[in-house]
Amino acid sequence: MEDLIAQLGNATFENYVGLDTGYTEMAYQLSAHVLTLGYAVMLAGLLYFVLTIKTVKPKYRISSVLSVVVMVSAFLLLLVQQQNWLSAFEYNTDTATYMLSSTNPGDLFNNGYRYLNWLIDVPMLLFQILFVVTLTTSKFSSVRNQFWFSGTGMILTGYAGQYYEVTDPTLFFIWGTLSTLFFFHILYLMKKVIDEGKQGAPAGAQAYLSNIWVLFFITWMLYPGAYLMPYLFSFSAEPALSEAAVVARHMTYTVADVGSKVIYGIFLTLAAQEMSKEEGYNWEEMESAL
Amino acid sequence: MEDLIAQLGNATFENYVGLDTGYTEMAYQLSAHVLTLGYAVMLAGLLYFVLTIKTVKPKYRISSVLSVVVMVSAFLLLLVQQQNWLSAFEYNTDTATYMLSSTNPGDLFNNGYRYLNWLIDVPMLLFQILFVVTLTTSKFSSVRNQFWFSGTGMILTGYAGQYYEVTDPTLFFIWGTLSTLFFFHILYLMKKVIDEGKQGAPAGAQAYLSNIWVLFFITWMLYPGAYLMPYLFSFSAEPALSEAAVVARHMTYTVADVGSKVIYGIFLTLAAQEMSKEEGYNWEEMESAL
Repeated sequence: MEDLIAQLGNATFENYVGLDTGYTEMAYQLSAHVLTLGYAVMLAGLLYFVLTIKTVKPKYRISSVLSVVVMVSAFLLLLVQQQNWLSAFEYNTDTATYMLSSTNPGDLFNNGYRYLNWLIDVPMLLFQILFVVTLTTSKFSSVRNQFWFSGTGMILTGYAGQYYEVTDPTLFFIWGTLSTLFFFHILYLMKKVIDEGKQGAPAGAQAYLSNIWVLFFITWMLYPGAYLMPYLFSFSAEPALSEAAVVARHMTYTVADVGSKVIYGIFLTLAAQEMSKEEGYNWEEMESAL
Repeated sequence: MEDLIAQLGNATFENYVGLDTGYTEMAYQLSAHVLTLGYAVMLAGLLYFVLTIKTVKPKYRISSVLSVVVMVSAFLLLLVQQQNWLSAFEYNTDTATYMLSSTNPGDLFNNGYRYLNWLIDVPMLLFQILFVVTLTTSKFSSVRNQFWFSGTGMILTGYAGQYYEVTDPTLFFIWGTLSTLFFFHILYLMKKVIDEGKQGAPAGAQAYLSNIWVLFFITWMLYPGAYLMPYLFSFSAEPALSEAAVVARHMTYTVADVGSKVIYGIFLTLAAQEMSKEEGYNWEEMESAL
């Protein structure tokens, strides 16, 4: 390990696996495919949100606009993330694995594209629900500012921490813990927003809002799991240099991204449709009566 | 330094750092991620301006069109700027840094893509506000021509100057000073435009126009700071060959670009929405009453 650290420094553990044993065909390809699925879903989602924007009352449409902003930025950053994976390793017929070339590695792999994407997406996703629900006791601007503060705090601390996942596990866990404290604050706020939003909402919209809370809780909890992945596979003070952990991280991030961005946005659109109907806005009739 | 100058000539200081010590994983990746964030925000902004164009009266829509023009050109040029960064340096396991290859450097890094982008964007951003506000004493065509003259003057002199940031600090500062004189003229004009625009505007629009002045002043002041970055980190007559200065420059340019292009455009849209409402144009009612 010492020898690898001298060569790779603060690179993430994906590169260590690449220089150590390399990736088997299945692990490498599965990673490439999952990363590709991720950005393809974002572009498909983009079209969904553009095409359904008129199914909700004008006052709810900013939610679709924010989903579009999230889809565009996630599409681009996940595309670059996948290209980063493809260019970081090359097949070696001697070892029959995909290795990080020790003579000319080019760019190393780094999950940071995801983090910088979240810097845009996390505030957008959190603001989005505020344009659909009506808060009964909390103040819009106060919740928005708290979402912004804890959202960016969570991302920046996680981003700093991920550089130390191999070289300095203590720092890695300290940054991760700070990030998690911001995350708990976000969870608390979101629960409050959804509970308030359900009061006075039509029954159909209430059901979607309940689903959104479950979806939000589960998908956002996946991110700290993906952050910790090299240690979840080692159960020790040293990170696991295991290709299974690498594949598990790609899959976890992708499932979390699809759930927390695309399905979340679709549920918000469906909730807004119920509210629009209750308020006398029926887009089907309007489109038929033209 | 003499030895490096013999090899790199008028290349910018980013290349000198790359040939001298190279970039640590954190500095290199942070640069790559920030550059990627920059163009992703531009494409996301593009969709925002397209999707909100009908929320303002037709006479204000040219402002959204100009934002779209700015987003497209900034997206493409910042994309190329990021690819320029990725291809200029490669990881070296001996030094554990990203180095400019001394035997086969390929393309050197240069910030000139940004400058050529500004040659389109600066006039567009300056004209844009003239389609939202109503000038009380100044003449539209006179302000427009002065914006054009000083806008292109500012960019072309800055572009010329940045080639000399390592090899000829005197020329670098002379061109920079010329560029700053044009900039002061733009600041003076913009202040006048915003002050005149606030007269007779509804209260909500006045508040946005005040915010636009603060935003404009702060974000445009960041550009000369980024230009001077190698000297801000050395405080001497020689540029600092410091990776921190390189990262600081990328971050400064990106924050400035997002503020001066995207947030500026959003504020202008919001101001135009207030003015439209005041003039009896209510897009929410129109969309619901079809």
